[in-house]
Amino acid sequence: MDHARSPLYAAIDLGSNSFHMLVVREVQGSVQTLAKIKRKVRLAAGLDKHLNLSSEAMQRGWDCLSLFAERLQDIDPQNIRIVATAALRSAKNTDEFIAKANQILGHPITVITGEEEACTIYQGVAHTSGGKGKRLVVDIGGASTELIIGEGFDAAALTSLDMGCVTWLEQHFKDRSLTEASFDRAIDGAKQVLAPIVERYRSLGWDVCVGASGTVQALQEIMIAQGMDEVITLAKLHRLRKQAIGFGQVEELDIDGLTLERALVFPSGLSILIAIFEQFDIDSMTLAGGALREGLVYGMMNTMQQQDIRIRTIQSIQSRYQLDQAHANSVANMAANLLRQCGDKWIVEPIAEDMLNSAAELYEIGMSIGFKKDGEHAAYLIKNLDLPGFTQAQKQLLAQLLRQYREQLQPIGAQSAVSATSANRILRILRLAVILCHRRDSQTLPVVTLNAEYDALTLTLPHEWEANNPLMSAELALEAQRQCDQHWPLIIA
Amino acid sequence: MDHARSPLYAAIDLGSNSFHMLVVREVQGSVQTLAKIKRKVRLAAGLDKHLNLSSEAMQRGWDCLSLFAERLQDIDPQNIRIVATAALRSAKNTDEFIAKANQILGHPITVITGEEEACTIYQGVAHTSGGKGKRLVVDIGGASTELIIGEGFDAAALTSLDMGCVTWLEQHFKDRSLTEASFDRAIDGAKQVLAPIVERYRSLGWDVCVGASGTVQALQEIMIAQGMDEVITLAKLHRLRKQAIGFGQVEELDIDGLTLERALVFPSGLSILIAIFEQFDIDSMTLAGGALREGLVYGMMNTMQQQDIRIRTIQSIQSRYQLDQAHANSVANMAANLLRQCGDKWIVEPIAEDMLNSAAELYEIGMSIGFKKDGEHAAYLIKNLDLPGFTQAQKQLLAQLLRQYREQLQPIGAQSAVSATSANRILRILRLAVILCHRRDSQTLPVVTLNAEYDALTLTLPHEWEANNPLMSAELALEAQRQCDQHWPLIIA
Repeated sequence: MDHARSPLYAAIDLGSNSFHMLVVREVQGSVQTLAKIKRKVRLAAGLDKHLNLSSEAMQRGWDCLSLFAERLQDIDPQNIRIVATAALRSAKNTDEFIAKANQILGHPITVITGEEEACTIYQGVAHTSGGKGKRLVVDIGGASTELIIGEGFDAAALTSLDMGCVTWLEQHFKDRSLTEASFDRAIDGAKQVLAPIVERYRSLGWDVCVGASGTVQALQEIMIAQGMDEVITLAKLHRLRKQAIGFGQVEELDIDGLTLERALVFPSGLSILIAIFEQFDIDSMTLAGGALREGLVYGMMNTMQQQDIRIRTIQSIQSRYQLDQAHANSVANMAANLLRQCGDKWIVEPIAEDMLNSAAELYEIGMSIGFKKDGEHAAYLIKNLDLPGFTQAQKQLLAQLLRQYREQLQPIGAQSAVSATSANRILRILRLAVILCHRRDSQTLPVVTLNAEYDALTLTLPHEWEANNPLMSAELALEAQRQCDQHWPLIIA
Repeated sequence: MDHARSPLYAAIDLGSNSFHMLVVREVQGSVQTLAKIKRKVRLAAGLDKHLNLSSEAMQRGWDCLSLFAERLQDIDPQNIRIVATAALRSAKNTDEFIAKANQILGHPITVITGEEEACTIYQGVAHTSGGKGKRLVVDIGGASTELIIGEGFDAAALTSLDMGCVTWLEQHFKDRSLTEASFDRAIDGAKQVLAPIVERYRSLGWDVCVGASGTVQALQEIMIAQGMDEVITLAKLHRLRKQAIGFGQVEELDIDGLTLERALVFPSGLSILIAIFEQFDIDSMTLAGGALREGLVYGMMNTMQQQDIRIRTIQSIQSRYQLDQAHANSVANMAANLLRQCGDKWIVEPIAEDMLNSAAELYEIGMSIGFKKDGEHAAYLIKNLDLPGFTQAQKQLLAQLLRQYREQLQPIGAQSAVSATSANRILRILRLAVILCHRRDSQTLPVVTLNAEYDALTLTLPHEWEANNPLMSAELALEAQRQCDQHWPLIIA
């Protein structure tokens, strides 16, 4: 079997705060993680004022790399990328460090420029984030911050700034005290660093804003732990800032969702992000599924460039789970056709239509585990699979749709991907489409008319059709009853 | 993709009590269920004393078949098998029923002989049950009972008896009263029916006994609901008989795990099974994963005949989940090698070695869902996947082994596949094998020695090996600590 020995890839990133190693396999157009190893080497903390790395810091780096080296031995050298970023860009004695590091790894390390770093981050985001239009990508690292504007796989503006959550910690929260004043200084300082590019970026413009990497992820995790939704807004960032000030000292921080590991760089990262939101007048930001390391990995797999990440993800999952693609497409077409007949205003969010399509394309995934409770299996898979192009909230919604694509029906529970009304409406359409395609033959689909008046649906079937299709008619009658029980009138005419 | 349009198959069984339809897809050597439709047609109940089917009973049958017909339309006629069993074997007006039924279905129905039924049941069992040696298969239907002795895919003795849970209900529990006397009569009556074949069967002999179909399954479900394990024994059957007598009347039966649907035929099925246990002096019986319908379906897929069902299942799962087979084999070999070094008496049950092998072959299955919590994902999949050749208890054990093949370690929880000592010991071996094969290259495996003294293990690594493999050494040291924390000494020398 061709996948039995599908190739391994490794990406190593010698960051200013941590070294990371990612080992993956390519499986039918998907990237499957086999190992993630991270060591907090704190290279940037070992830089003295003359920008020389201390010998202790270098030793920490080399020790870490000798662990990584063991895992690299059996990977094809063509499938390995190793890059170093800000701390090693700026250190005066980088050559000394790199010479020994190359020897330990047995593979060359490339110290990439800020612009190359920004470019790779953008590729990592582009390969793992869905949606259309221009995007502004923000990545706050240990010693640098990257800002990129791009569309699809093409970046139009790339900037790397000498400001990161470790350097900002040292500059603005040196005494570890959390006050209005220290935050103000940190935010103002960041705004000055950002100032030179603001005008150009604003004139280029963007449709969506995406945050990448640990700093943004940590902030989002705190928000979610505190019961907020996954969308990052300036108001929420200021709420976190006020909470932090309430604790007075970094050591005292006791914020739900904040890990010990991240606590130290929390105020500095937060300040930089607030500055970015204010300088660029950002409404909201979502989290990307990948950044630098993912950019390196996808960069080695040239074949995977596909304009729409969600479509690539769905096709890959259909193939990995051996779903019947022709049937899935016909259910998706039926669903789209039904939704169109309900009129433009029946569902207001464009993303809801996308979610309906994705749900239809994947609805049989649970059966790959078992026929019994297949809705539950589908929900489990969707929640736990890595689905590049889908945010957490979208995965939650998909899971809820697939959990009850047939049989028992209940209103969709709390989710933040679309409005509750839209979520329930696409569920109703999905269920109808599945029943109408039961014969699994796109040649024999009934030509139906669906009429919507607010929540009331009327489905009209062809003449004589009912008599010739007793099983499907019985299923539609039962479905009408189930929808009516939820006070969602459905008439089969 | 070749699987995008993998073929559908349908099997329909016109039984004496119910009509069943099974629709499946063949996916990379696995059978994936797409639909199961069952209607309680009660054909046998419509037979009068002259063995004529009443017109009402025939109409119930035809109505049911017109539902099935709708689903058959889009399946290749070559991939459809429709059989009728006992009730239609014995009815005088079968031709009348079949003529119209053929017309409704658009496919010919074959009324199979008792021997053909027994033969097909055996194939269904052989394709879905693991283990070696000769097996006695018992299938108690509505109007007939099949007893088969076979080995692998070859049946050596085939018998179909005119006795089933519906006919025995009418003969021995007509007034629905549950007394010692009514049970005694039903059991004795069954023994008389069995008598002519007892000697021949006993002289052929068997190693394991397997029950198939609804009656045995329902009895096993009751046992499990009452906290017993999955193995059916005579003592447990008599316990159920006493419980039943305690309720006095069929209508009053209130036994944990007994469904309403099955309650009516519970005393009659139980009596027949007790008679079989006593006549053939059976120690214990397990449940097969399939019977008549599965025999029909697998019979259409000729390529799937493989002597060892467990191996076929594992290979199919490895392929469906795109596992790295070469790596899985090398972990399995390492595990077998380690276990062998512990000596013959370290694990007493032969099945435990099989379970260790299966766990090693599948240990990466959870990663196909996600790297994080992959043990949990693996356990979820193993518990919910249909794994022909593995019993429920074996699946439970496999799930528990895979849940913690790495990281945190705890003793294996309650399970009934092997002794607790053996379960924990194979877990320890599995974890060591996984670590030792981390480099994913069978050329670089260390040659290790493992010595066992009761629970104390000493693993000896090659000289200089530790210094050259710091990552693996660190992992082994951590593993030694984890095993020691469970009071399972492990020394790495």
